[in-house]
Amino acid sequence: MAEQDVDDVRNKLETGSARDVREAVRAGAWRTTTHGLARGFVQANVAIVPEAYALDFMRFCHRNPKPCPLLDVTDTGDPEFRQIAPGSDVRTDLSEYSVYRDGELAAEPGDIRDLWREDLVAFAMGCSLSFDQILLDHGIDVAHLDRPGGRIAVYTSGLQCAAAGPFEGPMVVSMRPIPRHQLDRVIEVTSRYPATHGGPVHVGDPREIGIDDPDKVDWGAPAVVGPEDETVFWGCGVTPQAVAMAARLPLMITHKTGHMLLTDLRLKELAQ
Amino acid sequence: MAEQDVDDVRNKLETGSARDVREAVRAGAWRTTTHGLARGFVQANVAIVPEAYALDFMRFCHRNPKPCPLLDVTDTGDPEFRQIAPGSDVRTDLSEYSVYRDGELAAEPGDIRDLWREDLVAFAMGCSLSFDQILLDHGIDVAHLDRPGGRIAVYTSGLQCAAAGPFEGPMVVSMRPIPRHQLDRVIEVTSRYPATHGGPVHVGDPREIGIDDPDKVDWGAPAVVGPEDETVFWGCGVTPQAVAMAARLPLMITHKTGHMLLTDLRLKELAQ
Repeated sequence: MAEQDVDDVRNKLETGSARDVREAVRAGAWRTTTHGLARGFVQANVAIVPEAYALDFMRFCHRNPKPCPLLDVTDTGDPEFRQIAPGSDVRTDLSEYSVYRDGELAAEPGDIRDLWREDLVAFAMGCSLSFDQILLDHGIDVAHLDRPGGRIAVYTSGLQCAAAGPFEGPMVVSMRPIPRHQLDRVIEVTSRYPATHGGPVHVGDPREIGIDDPDKVDWGAPAVVGPEDETVFWGCGVTPQAVAMAARLPLMITHKTGHMLLTDLRLKELAQ
Repeated sequence: MAEQDVDDVRNKLETGSARDVREAVRAGAWRTTTHGLARGFVQANVAIVPEAYALDFMRFCHRNPKPCPLLDVTDTGDPEFRQIAPGSDVRTDLSEYSVYRDGELAAEPGDIRDLWREDLVAFAMGCSLSFDQILLDHGIDVAHLDRPGGRIAVYTSGLQCAAAGPFEGPMVVSMRPIPRHQLDRVIEVTSRYPATHGGPVHVGDPREIGIDDPDKVDWGAPAVVGPEDETVFWGCGVTPQAVAMAARLPLMITHKTGHMLLTDLRLKELAQ
């Protein structure tokens, strides 16, 4: 597509519904990341595993709700998220996928129809794109969103997840510098949204959760922490992916970073 | 035990911890219902199913959080609820169990050590005993608690649960008459506790949710609805049991009504 056409589609999808985005992706009319699309709708991380691992994976999510806030799980072999995205098809509705075999990245296809099997189970989990929107809606300054690509500082922390079967390991966390005078408000607001990682898992010195050098990120880009800022850490949706990779499942398929599932849930519905 | 001894134990356990109650039950020192014990701690419904059904049962709970607010799930074959009751043993820590075979009540033993199998998975779900305590703590009149035994009006409603595998069927609901001037407050308070059924599923005319004669309860006892009262309905923890019975699992074990699992969770921790 020419650049102008991409801009036209983007403009349309930014104000469109989640279903509009899913249909555009399915039709091949949108092939890049979903940041900023279908404003007000919840975007989700996706992980697809064979049924033999699904019960343990679901237990892992339930035991670690901050990094893995489970929004929906499909029936075995059913590619539709019936609760959060009726009419969706997880084989075609993400613009890019990551396919892992035995824990190694094997392919990044634009759809997974040829990989689908009757024993696969798909999980959708809350993600931090939605989270950032909540902060913005509440008038909180989110510095990383002003940077090109909106890349955020993400670390493998020293906090251990509660294990479930083969799924175990450290919690991956995202860090946002928050102006000290907004700290109470940030904790209050994010705690009301358990479906998008909830309240912080840590506030303050990164070393207390095993992050010795905040300039060395594991994903994303380091943050600029001003003199008036506190470093605030939240559970991150990379956790279940990292844990499942470490478990070296024979097959696991996820969204590619930034290429999220658009759900019919609205951010405002998620508030507790 | 002599009546006086039972009263002595009750007095001790009412102000004791959840662990005290579990240990008393395990030792055979407490054999009756748990209403009023370990005040401030969350009591839970328990359902134990073979692993072959556990993924579908967990999906059912996730899709129907109001009747089935999942608090914890054990590893397969592990009798300990490690998240909500470290040191617990689900084979001995309930004072009475109901054992269902092919959907029929087969026995009501005082422990299930001889029935335990390596493929069993135990689920703990929030229950309305905790719920009533929350209402009391917030100064809301709960008429049924003034009645002997605290029996509440429970109905099979016309609301359908979201199905998962063999688990499907109507939602069982509990009804409490609430003085109209406290209605807003009741909705606000209970909505903050998703782990104990959350906010109401219906307010007003019972017929709108398929309950044609409120005097004909399916469990418990009919309520006295005063002229200033509104009838308010919540999802009820009987739902997963009813649905699992209807699915005619070869084996399912639950707590016997009123004989709950005492968890280390405190009611105040559950507030969102």
